[in-house]
Amino acid sequence: MARLIECVPNFSEGRNKELIEKILDEVRKVEDVKLLDYSSDKDHNRTVVTFIGEPENVLEATFNACKRASELIDMTKHTGEHPRMGATDVIPLIPISDVTMEEAIELSRKLAKRIGEELNIPVFLYEKSATASHRENLAEIRKGQYEGMAEKLKKEMWKPDFGPDELNIKSGVTAVGARMPLVAFNVNLGTNDITVAKKIAKAVRASSGGLKYCKALGIEIKERDIVQVSMNMVDYTKTPLYRVFDMIEREANRYGVNVIGSEVIGLVPMNALIDCADYYLKVENFDYGQILENRIFE
Amino acid sequence: MARLIECVPNFSEGRNKELIEKILDEVRKVEDVKLLDYSSDKDHNRTVVTFIGEPENVLEATFNACKRASELIDMTKHTGEHPRMGATDVIPLIPISDVTMEEAIELSRKLAKRIGEELNIPVFLYEKSATASHRENLAEIRKGQYEGMAEKLKKEMWKPDFGPDELNIKSGVTAVGARMPLVAFNVNLGTNDITVAKKIAKAVRASSGGLKYCKALGIEIKERDIVQVSMNMVDYTKTPLYRVFDMIEREANRYGVNVIGSEVIGLVPMNALIDCADYYLKVENFDYGQILENRIFE
Repeated sequence: MARLIECVPNFSEGRNKELIEKILDEVRKVEDVKLLDYSSDKDHNRTVVTFIGEPENVLEATFNACKRASELIDMTKHTGEHPRMGATDVIPLIPISDVTMEEAIELSRKLAKRIGEELNIPVFLYEKSATASHRENLAEIRKGQYEGMAEKLKKEMWKPDFGPDELNIKSGVTAVGARMPLVAFNVNLGTNDITVAKKIAKAVRASSGGLKYCKALGIEIKERDIVQVSMNMVDYTKTPLYRVFDMIEREANRYGVNVIGSEVIGLVPMNALIDCADYYLKVENFDYGQILENRIFE
Repeated sequence: MARLIECVPNFSEGRNKELIEKILDEVRKVEDVKLLDYSSDKDHNRTVVTFIGEPENVLEATFNACKRASELIDMTKHTGEHPRMGATDVIPLIPISDVTMEEAIELSRKLAKRIGEELNIPVFLYEKSATASHRENLAEIRKGQYEGMAEKLKKEMWKPDFGPDELNIKSGVTAVGARMPLVAFNVNLGTNDITVAKKIAKAVRASSGGLKYCKALGIEIKERDIVQVSMNMVDYTKTPLYRVFDMIEREANRYGVNVIGSEVIGLVPMNALIDCADYYLKVENFDYGQILENRIFE
């Protein structure tokens, strides 16, 4: 398999279709970068774009799109329901195949430096790229939003990692960071008792003592008269899908409830599923290089 | 994922390295075809080559290699332990991704026609491409070997599918056919009692009433003091790995024996493992298109 990273930048424009297309074109025109998805929300006035490719190409596409956004979007005029602080609000870089997290962090630093220096935009590194623990969480960085950033940047603890120390009035502030791919994974239970789903969600999620890279909620699926443990797996390499699945099955059993199915929502990295086959089949010494498809693009 | 087929031609030369390289070069020089593996056996006097790529490119590489083999190998002088009937002895075409078996069969017919007409070699279609049930099994087609082919071709039931009705003295006869990828899958048992492995192998394999696309043997792994059910899964889409694994676990349990592990030998198509994750996690409505890696080369 080729070296692949995914990028999911969020731009602060969700209404002007023509403008959005100009930003998307910057991604489309970089060779060997594949635009996978984009969606604009008028209320949020925000567009989320997903593309994938080899690291250097993805950085190029991201920088160009960010540059174009800084030319086209004027943050002094931006309104929308979603919290935001910049024309390009946030740029997550996600290692997909044959790229380590360390390499993704290095790539995020390179991109952040270029945005800071060439576009004169203050840039914070966040998530795995953060240079201090109070900067890991995007919500913390963005607190105060665009309108509060001029003041916030004056504080020593909010000195940007790259770019000027003062707000870019037109383009605001951008956060860049490496993170793991997120897998949206839901497990359906053979009961309509919401308390069971809520108890199991509490047992498996990190915030209440469960698995470190699992976020979970118990919810009702009314049209099927069942309940569901709805999850975001934020690092499948450390908290694998099979582990949370087995744990839910065991907890459900304690209430006399069966797991009746699961759902993988949206895109999932191949290895998140390969790891499950490896686990349940008890495969000894499996190597991802044994997967035929991984051999053709190496 | 791109449309991919794999080709594993067998050439009747395993000793003359220079000659073998000339055949391999025909594969190497077709753009976007990836030579995955090749191995020559001196006793067999035979070389097995594995490559993969988009259908048209793979057909081109295969035809060119076959043409070169017909120029370089003289079957009147061939000796070797492995049964053989032609310079290019057999050409299996294997659909890997986004190619149906029907399409692979059509590709095999196209290739067989070209070899027959342009190289003047009698060609039999075999396996899934066979035009009669007695031609499905390669061993049946090859019976009598090169030395018996001149006589065999005179019989109505052995009239070739393409090419001349008479033996090509220098190049012999070639078989071309589409088949499913084969997965070599072994399951290790927590006992050194070979009778248990043999009984389980008998239960799961097609030839004695078990799963249709499973071939199995019970063997000893002396260095680990265990026994193993050693299998070739000849169509994982119809007899999936998880089904034979679960069946072995259940049969082993009947003898009070645990499954202690499994092995996937060599290359395995991604979907053979994805199907296992889908099964054990009870995923509802999974689509291969949800695998991120499948999106980049589509």
